[in-house]
Amino acid sequence: MIETEFDVAAIGSAIVDVLAKVDESFITTHKLQKGGMILIDENQAEEIYKAMPPSIEKSGGSSANTIAGIVSLGGNAAFIGKVKNDQLGKIFIHDLKAQGVHYTTRPATDGISTARCLVAVTPDAERSMATYLGATREITKSDIDEEVIANAKVTYLEGYLWDEQHAKDAMREAVRLAVKHGREISLSLSDSFCVTRHKAELLELITSNVDILFANEAEIKELLDVDNVKDAAKKLSGMCKVSAITLGSKGSVIVSGDNIYTVPPGKGIKLVDTTGAGDLYAAGFLFGYTQGYSLDECGRIATIAASEIIQHIGARPEVRLAGLL
Amino acid sequence: MIETEFDVAAIGSAIVDVLAKVDESFITTHKLQKGGMILIDENQAEEIYKAMPPSIEKSGGSSANTIAGIVSLGGNAAFIGKVKNDQLGKIFIHDLKAQGVHYTTRPATDGISTARCLVAVTPDAERSMATYLGATREITKSDIDEEVIANAKVTYLEGYLWDEQHAKDAMREAVRLAVKHGREISLSLSDSFCVTRHKAELLELITSNVDILFANEAEIKELLDVDNVKDAAKKLSGMCKVSAITLGSKGSVIVSGDNIYTVPPGKGIKLVDTTGAGDLYAAGFLFGYTQGYSLDECGRIATIAASEIIQHIGARPEVRLAGLL
Repeated sequence: MIETEFDVAAIGSAIVDVLAKVDESFITTHKLQKGGMILIDENQAEEIYKAMPPSIEKSGGSSANTIAGIVSLGGNAAFIGKVKNDQLGKIFIHDLKAQGVHYTTRPATDGISTARCLVAVTPDAERSMATYLGATREITKSDIDEEVIANAKVTYLEGYLWDEQHAKDAMREAVRLAVKHGREISLSLSDSFCVTRHKAELLELITSNVDILFANEAEIKELLDVDNVKDAAKKLSGMCKVSAITLGSKGSVIVSGDNIYTVPPGKGIKLVDTTGAGDLYAAGFLFGYTQGYSLDECGRIATIAASEIIQHIGARPEVRLAGLL
Repeated sequence: MIETEFDVAAIGSAIVDVLAKVDESFITTHKLQKGGMILIDENQAEEIYKAMPPSIEKSGGSSANTIAGIVSLGGNAAFIGKVKNDQLGKIFIHDLKAQGVHYTTRPATDGISTARCLVAVTPDAERSMATYLGATREITKSDIDEEVIANAKVTYLEGYLWDEQHAKDAMREAVRLAVKHGREISLSLSDSFCVTRHKAELLELITSNVDILFANEAEIKELLDVDNVKDAAKKLSGMCKVSAITLGSKGSVIVSGDNIYTVPPGKGIKLVDTTGAGDLYAAGFLFGYTQGYSLDECGRIATIAASEIIQHIGARPEVRLAGLL
């Protein structure tokens, strides 16, 4: 029996990040997508890892980062995602629970290992990611806890999981349950290449079910086949209740019906590593949204959370974000 | 067949650090030794880890940190130490090899898991450590590669390993081989509680075999039963060729025969986490020493290396130290 109402429940990848600073040549040598994410198998993971400089390990996963951020801001949140019961899986579970996240998805006891994301951070602070999905692929409909979805104001989905049939079925089950219980649904497009691979399905989901959409400039242009953010905003106004488009160092734009809010970027940023910027923007926005703040106030909190994460290595907050508001 | 001559070969603990920022109350609640290291078993490790905030994982181990530092400074170095062939073990191996360290100790394929050190960093940037030695205890005499010791100008030992009989035997074997091949021997006292536990043995080893001794103020006072560094220096002048005593924010003192060199501390330090300060001091010193630099120059390089490590979380360099000289 869950007694707390959650602000947000996320369904997403359960990943440990392996982060290292690399030269630009590393990106081309290993055929990474600069600023994007590629999926790799276990052999490729071994090969790229072998070539990586000394690294640090830190829990990651796009929507898990968002959830960690919401709790750090003072919200209540739950996460659903699959690890294996191995050393990296235990680290992932520890870090979410230690943050105060409700997380009870049963780890796999056999099969492939916990997911790893090799994060190559170039001197321009951009991150390029190669993900071995591992056990995170094994999430199924039966892992979607109806009680969690029923008790969450917003159910949050990450676009990355659209690449896996099992995981996609699990996400669709979460959508069904959120609709059944009259809850709102939020989606992050995650990655422009991911949008290319699943454009029709994502468009259908957004039009039918998504209340709050998160995208960056490349992702929204790809999704809507437009050339600029202005045209994207026009199309979005009728598609979902609220959309937030992040524009990197130029800030962000929030679209709601006919209203467009321009959110300025953070000030005095000492950029170190952009890993988690979009994840923490969503954290700040959803925290504000579920507290009932105005949309421009949501954008302001989103910017504060994203600004903290890009000033250090790794995609989980290093300070209590509530202290920054 | 080893073609390179190593500047330093170290025998030490093969540990992955689990680092988190904690309040002072965490130290008392979990009976940690403020600024020191306690040994814990697997159950205690689980219990303390459960209570720790979200953490990052980074390769550690005292003399492994030193070796990583020497290579980062531009030296050639080898490491001998035991992990298990598990996820954390693979991380430890990766990080040393990726740094350019010669490291061929065979990982254990069964038995207890790779060692972990829970590092609690308090707001004053002091680290208090709880170590589960795991597979690192399984090192034996047969792991000491004679060819490595024979080819290293200096064989470096860490005091921490004196707590384990197998490991102690392995260290004694390394001493025997270094003496056999006419190589120099260096020792770090590691921890004052460790010195208390093994005082007589350590004194005997230092008097008979150690050329270069590293200690901090608490360790050297405990070893020599003196009240101040001046008295320690007097006693040390006849004991080994060179001794370096680190004094935290007050810099360090180098003793060689009747000569005492006072080394000023680093300037403009923004202290974040003292984990690895002593390890990297030894790295800088031994790098300078094996390049044939004067003792005060060795002290200067030691201070540069230690200053880099205390300005970020974790005990391995985040930049190429050679670039700081």
